[in-house]
Amino acid sequence: MPSPTETVYGKHSVRAVLLARPGAVRRMLLGGKGAYHADLIALARRSGVRPELVGWPEFRHLTGLSDEDKHQGAAVIVSRRRPLTEADLGRLADGHVVLALDQISDPQNLGTILRCAAFFGVDGVLVLKNRSAEVSPLVARIAVGGAELVDTFRVTNLARALERLQSMGYWVYGLDERGPATLAQTEFDARTVLVVGAEGEGLRRRTRETCDALVRIPGGRPGLESLNAGVATAVALAELFRGREAG
Amino acid sequence: MPSPTETVYGKHSVRAVLLARPGAVRRMLLGGKGAYHADLIALARRSGVRPELVGWPEFRHLTGLSDEDKHQGAAVIVSRRRPLTEADLGRLADGHVVLALDQISDPQNLGTILRCAAFFGVDGVLVLKNRSAEVSPLVARIAVGGAELVDTFRVTNLARALERLQSMGYWVYGLDERGPATLAQTEFDARTVLVVGAEGEGLRRRTRETCDALVRIPGGRPGLESLNAGVATAVALAELFRGREAG
Repeated sequence: MPSPTETVYGKHSVRAVLLARPGAVRRMLLGGKGAYHADLIALARRSGVRPELVGWPEFRHLTGLSDEDKHQGAAVIVSRRRPLTEADLGRLADGHVVLALDQISDPQNLGTILRCAAFFGVDGVLVLKNRSAEVSPLVARIAVGGAELVDTFRVTNLARALERLQSMGYWVYGLDERGPATLAQTEFDARTVLVVGAEGEGLRRRTRETCDALVRIPGGRPGLESLNAGVATAVALAELFRGREAG
Repeated sequence: MPSPTETVYGKHSVRAVLLARPGAVRRMLLGGKGAYHADLIALARRSGVRPELVGWPEFRHLTGLSDEDKHQGAAVIVSRRRPLTEADLGRLADGHVVLALDQISDPQNLGTILRCAAFFGVDGVLVLKNRSAEVSPLVARIAVGGAELVDTFRVTNLARALERLQSMGYWVYGLDERGPATLAQTEFDARTVLVVGAEGEGLRRRTRETCDALVRIPGGRPGLESLNAGVATAVALAELFRGREAG
């Protein structure tokens, strides 16, 4: 029985698929002029994938995309990855930085966060199974490849997943404006979980109580008290990877 | 002759107007139930502004907004501020951190950047007069108040404006992936200008050549080489204000 497929689109996301899992590609569809896609075509050939140049009506028909999807004329139909769950957390045994999202429901924020997580080299991202945006094709497009390059674990109970990571040696830091210490004042453990909550609401009580420490981003003023959740996550991840010189 | 007006909308932006320039408010219009707006109504009264509760058709008619504008039922009609230009750069004589945007054309990014600039307490933001998104009502809404709380200077020639700031004692740092030093490796001057370019294109040659130093955010990998311009700006501003404890 063939495994289910999904459509990944946008030139950056398609490029990330060709780099991360070329073997999963069933079809690679390019609309418009070949010259516009020269870089993707060359990469596809190096990856053993055969790109198909098609007219726009066929492109829309085969991919199910409309022009509002900002597909940039590039899409791959790929075998769907097996979703990672709580049962797979053991994969993070040798990790250093894990990101956990407590109810991030905005697709734009989730896409931004996955992009940052991939940029900085996070080992895994935990999302709530029932109270979070899904890693949908839209989120993947906003992540411009990030969704392909970072492992996402869908968990039903975040506090329990955090306790599991604690038992594996991780130290859990919650980003919370009530945190006594700023990011800069905090000596992060070599094995760190960063937990980020929804904008406005912050971390849920049970999540907060599971954290080993709460940290905050210094700033804010009357009329502008907080950062957007995606931006706050980026700032905190930059701090975690601050010392590194590579890249 | 009455000065021209503009409409600022969204509850955060309206709140910022009431805090930053209540005297500029000509009318304050609230749609829907008063109970939903209790906080804004209380703040308006403390600020000497009289809120008008109106029905939805009247709200739309008076503000010119549609439901797609995500107005949250809150708008103020205010006297337009005099736009700041190159001639006003002298206002930054006692500043510490100035942000300069080289061709940021995406309203979402500009809104995100103004929000961060206000959150961290930047003294002023330079935007290009002809090659940038305008600080429109949409940008102001995305900035959730940031556009009210930070001075924006519209300049025609960015390199010349940067030279002016240099003559006032500022040191100019360009954010550029070719920068030899990372943010963390850089000792920023007490009077710093941070210059950020458009995603993908980066800084224009003339802008880059005017910078005293180029700095980069460490990270990136094949398939995901860069951060979004708004996020990159947030990360760099967080570094500039990293040492501070307040907030």
